[in-house]
Amino acid sequence: MHLMRVGAPGAEKPVVRVDDRSYVDVSDLVTDFDESFFGGGGIRQLAEPVAERIAAGETQEFGEQRIGAPIARPHQILCIGLNYRDHAAETGQAVPAEPILFTKSPNTLVGPNDDIRIPRGSDKTDWEVELGIVIGGRTSYLASPADAKAAIAGYVLVNDVSERTFQMERGGQWSKGKSAETFNPAGPWLATPDEIPDVLDLDMTLDVNGVRRQTGNTQTMIFDPYVIVHHLSQFMVLEPGDLINTGTPPGVGMGLRPQVWLRAGDVVELSIEHLGTARQNVIGPR
Amino acid sequence: MHLMRVGAPGAEKPVVRVDDRSYVDVSDLVTDFDESFFGGGGIRQLAEPVAERIAAGETQEFGEQRIGAPIARPHQILCIGLNYRDHAAETGQAVPAEPILFTKSPNTLVGPNDDIRIPRGSDKTDWEVELGIVIGGRTSYLASPADAKAAIAGYVLVNDVSERTFQMERGGQWSKGKSAETFNPAGPWLATPDEIPDVLDLDMTLDVNGVRRQTGNTQTMIFDPYVIVHHLSQFMVLEPGDLINTGTPPGVGMGLRPQVWLRAGDVVELSIEHLGTARQNVIGPR
Repeated sequence: MHLMRVGAPGAEKPVVRVDDRSYVDVSDLVTDFDESFFGGGGIRQLAEPVAERIAAGETQEFGEQRIGAPIARPHQILCIGLNYRDHAAETGQAVPAEPILFTKSPNTLVGPNDDIRIPRGSDKTDWEVELGIVIGGRTSYLASPADAKAAIAGYVLVNDVSERTFQMERGGQWSKGKSAETFNPAGPWLATPDEIPDVLDLDMTLDVNGVRRQTGNTQTMIFDPYVIVHHLSQFMVLEPGDLINTGTPPGVGMGLRPQVWLRAGDVVELSIEHLGTARQNVIGPR
Repeated sequence: MHLMRVGAPGAEKPVVRVDDRSYVDVSDLVTDFDESFFGGGGIRQLAEPVAERIAAGETQEFGEQRIGAPIARPHQILCIGLNYRDHAAETGQAVPAEPILFTKSPNTLVGPNDDIRIPRGSDKTDWEVELGIVIGGRTSYLASPADAKAAIAGYVLVNDVSERTFQMERGGQWSKGKSAETFNPAGPWLATPDEIPDVLDLDMTLDVNGVRRQTGNTQTMIFDPYVIVHHLSQFMVLEPGDLINTGTPPGVGMGLRPQVWLRAGDVVELSIEHLGTARQNVIGPR
């Protein structure tokens, strides 16, 4: 199943994607794709009514509607740093012994095709295509990475937008450079695990103004999604609907020589196999 | 006004404190002390009906009811590190040039007298008495620290419980040692700014098993609450109800020689002038 949310910001309705053109509206069945939906077994409960509606031809066209993030604002957005061997190398940092955790403000979440707004005072706004994990149930102290499978509701394409000066040079911890508004475009859809043939073999790309900047595959992750969820569950309680950005492959602007930063007018296009494509226009500060 | 929440975990009702023994129930007027309450001008709207109920003698006794955190689970918990000159010195770190930001998982929030649970695998669970700021409205790009006053709904006593091994030795960023369940006791009440004669002159203490461990005053903060809120608003959008822990004075377990860590059976008692007292029993891992 592919969960999506369509409509104006703050007024998105939950739908299930049928194909590129059409969806089934489920807003009469669920309030939103939020903590209570994921925690209450909502995905499982949707399968039958959605199949019935598709069989009955009760589908609608996307048309020109805005696509929102496929999940409601989560309880938390967790991020794993330096999780691809080549990306760690390009930033000049050692391959970490354990997953590096940092966080983003949850209100950074926006739709896959919404604008990325350069923050005031920014001189180093950067891109990061990433595989996002959405947590399916309240999760703590998993016994093993294998147990993490049951804790994952699905996967989503995200851009972990970053301001490198704010991240590195303004006071010690990375979250200061990860939390500006619009800094977490996500979507177009959440794919449930059964829609992904092999989450450990997903091609991913990111282009800026038509120039291929990032090319990667989840095969080169240092810590795979199951290891990450198991690991995080030892340190905190993960809530249903929590989003975990799992790190980015090589090719971020910080790693280029000379370095390249996003500017107003730029266009960022990204994709992950089975998770769709997203396209963000970069705009200037408020 | 002093906002409180009383009742079982997850089922707290919003009340306004009258004195140590009694309160006015406002659960028929507001759903909770949450983002929508603070963002919708809820505090202002409560003043008149609360005054009328007190005048009419419509108060109730706390009795043996549990006291919850005085705010609902916030959108985010932000924390400022090393914000007291003496505390920076005891940890052997330089006084920061700018506020050091890190985060805690919002689901760490518990009541002021709830148990602190030692996480599994912990060997260095530590205490930190702190002044907490609660944000009153959606806030970004404040023009000056003076403008931050209007963005603050009130203040609250918090214990920023920390696991030092997880914080320092398990992967780079501090949030891994700040986010275990029960790691953010808060309360007993949120005091609106008019209830605090001078937020820049508040005595604070923390005792463990009756031994005074922390003694401080907000006078020795490096960055005061207005500077902090102004600063953070340059990097992210603060939401109504967001909690900001503003750093701890000297005397944490990590700073003692020999170092001292919390163990099951310990009792932590903390207080800040005008913000009440809290008492937490330390219990073993789940």
